Amino acid sequence: MKYGRTYNFSAGPAMMPEPVLEEIRDEMMNYRGSGMCVMEMSHRSKVFEEIIQEAEKDLRELMGIPDNYKVLFIQGGGTLQFAMVPMNLMKNGVACYIETGAWSKKAIAEAKKFGDVRVVASSKDKNFTHVPDCSDLDIPEEADYVYICENETIHGTTYFKLPNTKGKILVSDQSSMFLSRPCNVADYGLIWAGVQKNVGPAGLAIVIIREDLIRDDLDDKIPIYMNYKTHADSDSLYNTPNCWSIYCCGKVFKYLKNLGGLEAMNKINEEKAAILYDYLDSSKLFKGAVVKKDRSLMNVPFVTPTKEQDAAVVAATKAAGFDNLKGHKSVGGLRASIYNAMPKEGVEALVAFLKKYEEENI
Amino acid sequence: MKYGRTYNFSAGPAMMPEPVLEEIRDEMMNYRGSGMCVMEMSHRSKVFEEIIQEAEKDLRELMGIPDNYKVLFIQGGGTLQFAMVPMNLMKNGVACYIETGAWSKKAIAEAKKFGDVRVVASSKDKNFTHVPDCSDLDIPEEADYVYICENETIHGTTYFKLPNTKGKILVSDQSSMFLSRPCNVADYGLIWAGVQKNVGPAGLAIVIIREDLIRDDLDDKIPIYMNYKTHADSDSLYNTPNCWSIYCCGKVFKYLKNLGGLEAMNKINEEKAAILYDYLDSSKLFKGAVVKKDRSLMNVPFVTPTKEQDAAVVAATKAAGFDNLKGHKSVGGLRASIYNAMPKEGVEALVAFLKKYEEENI
Repeated sequence: MKYGRTYNFSAGPAMMPEPVLEEIRDEMMNYRGSGMCVMEMSHRSKVFEEIIQEAEKDLRELMGIPDNYKVLFIQGGGTLQFAMVPMNLMKNGVACYIETGAWSKKAIAEAKKFGDVRVVASSKDKNFTHVPDCSDLDIPEEADYVYICENETIHGTTYFKLPNTKGKILVSDQSSMFLSRPCNVADYGLIWAGVQKNVGPAGLAIVIIREDLIRDDLDDKIPIYMNYKTHADSDSLYNTPNCWSIYCCGKVFKYLKNLGGLEAMNKINEEKAAILYDYLDSSKLFKGAVVKKDRSLMNVPFVTPTKEQDAAVVAATKAAGFDNLKGHKSVGGLRASIYNAMPKEGVEALVAFLKKYEEENI
Repeated sequence: MKYGRTYNFSAGPAMMPEPVLEEIRDEMMNYRGSGMCVMEMSHRSKVFEEIIQEAEKDLRELMGIPDNYKVLFIQGGGTLQFAMVPMNLMKNGVACYIETGAWSKKAIAEAKKFGDVRVVASSKDKNFTHVPDCSDLDIPEEADYVYICENETIHGTTYFKLPNTKGKILVSDQSSMFLSRPCNVADYGLIWAGVQKNVGPAGLAIVIIREDLIRDDLDDKIPIYMNYKTHADSDSLYNTPNCWSIYCCGKVFKYLKNLGGLEAMNKINEEKAAILYDYLDSSKLFKGAVVKKDRSLMNVPFVTPTKEQDAAVVAATKAAGFDNLKGHKSVGGLRASIYNAMPKEGVEALVAFLKKYEEENI
């Protein structure tokens, strides 16, 4: 790769498109004749307002976000969203969660502070290696919403079919699959995503929320920053936002549009994932950790027969110049995160390396 | 200036040191042989751990932070701190606030959601143009802390002497004066600062908290992100932090150390502010908005006799290539924010311009 860059399989923060980084570098000392770097701009200035408005416009185009949804740029990452979702959406104080791994468990633990949480489906019994059947869930009439983690970064599962929420609002954490494939926003009440996996620099969550879910009656009850209304009413400029991340994400939105949008990205991502899964399925040393039908196109966990062998392979990949292939401590083994910005060549190089390793070691 | 950069008097986000921006630009495509940009690094990687640890170490050296204080890097800016301070520190449910302008008013409004707030001093009667006498405040025995905004960004006042808290913990919002002058951290229970004024890119607040104020009994009561313990126990890596801002701030810490630390910065800041205040005091057209003894060295609001004249001067400064000199809407007039990164030459150029304008227009 150019500049001596490595193929970085980190689960997040993760690779960004090289042409985007080059643009950012070239605008560092003086953004388009403004006389300043984006990091130095007042968030109330005309030049920054153009940046944030254009970022939102491009995201709306990419995802086809309907007009009755607001796009919010909020700090605090997924951890703050785990609390903001129940604080804002639990009107009746009851919510349904589907448990598919570490990230939905964290969301559940946080939501329990604010109301009655019903875990209506779980894949815990099989170590989160699949997505449970969600065609006929036991959803109580008083439930305010049904919550999913749509792509499980750690366990490597994804929903190819959304749950039947029986008319209740669907809330989705799309962090590790955001903008990786087309998405019908109207199917959801709220989508949120930490940007640091598939878009830009950490420190920003994007929230897409249907306007009628934004409440008027929370002002005195919760911290003003935790109220979606605060951000919706001010176009995400109530306080100083993470301007830099918004700027970088905006560039990635434009980059994806130029590549052909989310249909095109999905095709590329399917190709990339197939290269890796096809090899894993044919390998005698490695084995994918997830059932075939629920395999994520973004996060690919795999294992060898032993922990020692796992560690040896991770060390060998590192020595060969591949980065961050160690699996999450809760799962073990290896994990290749192959987000939008991972070039096809990176996946091919990894598979070539694993093949050679397998030939030499079994 | 180099690169066609302008003198940017924004109250924040604001200027950053040019050599720091050059370094960041040069490390964009491949940070020190890591093969990746800092924006692409796993926050759990060794290379990023070195960045955050070195940033903390340099900040500790700069401010002389005692070992029994934790340094936390938290997202959400001042707005989240307005809530986190009372949520974490109100044990008895009573706190004293000193009202010196827009930012302490916001802190007060937020704290009222969590307990009994006593405004023990205010400069509201004189439009926040001074700092009230805080030598003998009526502080109740059960008060958990006394809160100040140590430098008022909008109104241009600063505390040159800290309040007599009568033994209670002092909590200070230092956002617009952070690292501008020496500070005896042991005088405080908690200091927080949004970095986007005097340090680096927006999206990060630095919290310096005495260890014994971090509570063990809050886990189930408040959002996990809002608990200082969450960040203290994980060295600010409970979730993905704003890695980029931490990286940029770390570079500014090193830059300030190389300039001679906070004593040296204070001397430079006194010189810069004197250039502007001396002119304002001698001017027949312009007038500083704050009483002399409480004048901020960072934010300098000033006015002409009329609103029309104010607007005309702002337009003229803009045309002459100076940026962001319009006063905050709540105060009017003009405001020059002259943080650490504003070169002395910038203040001299502004004063030369204002002098010429005065000669030509009265």
